[in-house]
Amino acid sequence: MSIIHEPALFDAAAGRLKGEGVSRSTRTIRELPGVFAAEEERASLDPTLPVYEVEMHDRCGEVEGGLYFGVSHVHPGKVGNEFFMTKGHFHQKRDRGEYYWGIEGNGLLLLMDEARHSWAERVFPGSLHYIAGHVAHRLINTGDVKMIVGACWPSDAGHDYEAILNEGFSVRVVEQDGSPVLLEARS
Amino acid sequence: MSIIHEPALFDAAAGRLKGEGVSRSTRTIRELPGVFAAEEERASLDPTLPVYEVEMHDRCGEVEGGLYFGVSHVHPGKVGNEFFMTKGHFHQKRDRGEYYWGIEGNGLLLLMDEARHSWAERVFPGSLHYIAGHVAHRLINTGDVKMIVGACWPSDAGHDYEAILNEGFSVRVVEQDGSPVLLEARS
Repeated sequence: MSIIHEPALFDAAAGRLKGEGVSRSTRTIRELPGVFAAEEERASLDPTLPVYEVEMHDRCGEVEGGLYFGVSHVHPGKVGNEFFMTKGHFHQKRDRGEYYWGIEGNGLLLLMDEARHSWAERVFPGSLHYIAGHVAHRLINTGDVKMIVGACWPSDAGHDYEAILNEGFSVRVVEQDGSPVLLEARS
Repeated sequence: MSIIHEPALFDAAAGRLKGEGVSRSTRTIRELPGVFAAEEERASLDPTLPVYEVEMHDRCGEVEGGLYFGVSHVHPGKVGNEFFMTKGHFHQKRDRGEYYWGIEGNGLLLLMDEARHSWAERVFPGSLHYIAGHVAHRLINTGDVKMIVGACWPSDAGHDYEAILNEGFSVRVVEQDGSPVLLEARS
């Protein structure tokens, strides 16, 4: 019986995916207007500068009960004194959760509930993070090297970036005296 | 602001979980009646012999939209000429999918749809497997060392072991002349 199929590949050390169903997207400085407090500074940076990349494996499409598997690569860097980070999002289906796990580098997972209460978890190689439904999430690279984070989430979760673009998180993470500090965001 | 919480831990190389919400269970030879073709041989083995262990991280309970994260450790061994393996299951909510990824060791992921059509994927460090809904799945260690596999699945998926215990998979994986071979199971 010849019924053995080749699997996709997940390089768990480098955080790379390969195989059928894998796609890759990059977010450059150009694509992140309104995300950082220092918007003028952002607009003055090289627009092609990559801030983060996402690889994902999709074998089911957006169906109830399906899952996606992905890896985020957040580059080190700052806009003003604010660390490079992802746009951040709630799930469109608000009750959908997500798993993140730290693969490389150091940073924070910023979390915010619908009442705009924010908190964070340290992300490092070997950290594991359950993000409950109804909680917005953003990755922030507070280190000097790339921050790589694995992820698995329901394929029907969807992304609601709007809510975050309009109102932001209630906390920003900036560098002060060489260390990452959490500050209440001005609204 | 002191709002940084400690995450759980996932040792991605050793396949170990640690922290709040982590539990561990072991399946011994005693707990696997009817799973292997050579039932008499199974009953004659040391009943306390561990066949596989599962660690899981549960921070949400069995809710729609929630996820669990786990690691399976399948020991090397055989019952008769059939390799050590997990019980295997459909999800109780049949449309729920699951991700597996190979961490250590070598084996097969045996898959079977509801029409009892079976196939397999090779599992090795770096393999990534999407298990669609309505597909039963079983891990089989065909190697000489422990086979370790990461997993993420919807927390409301549930396990239906009954269907497999009653009817089995339509394929068994046995050793013939030192190599793993897939055989049609006698029903």
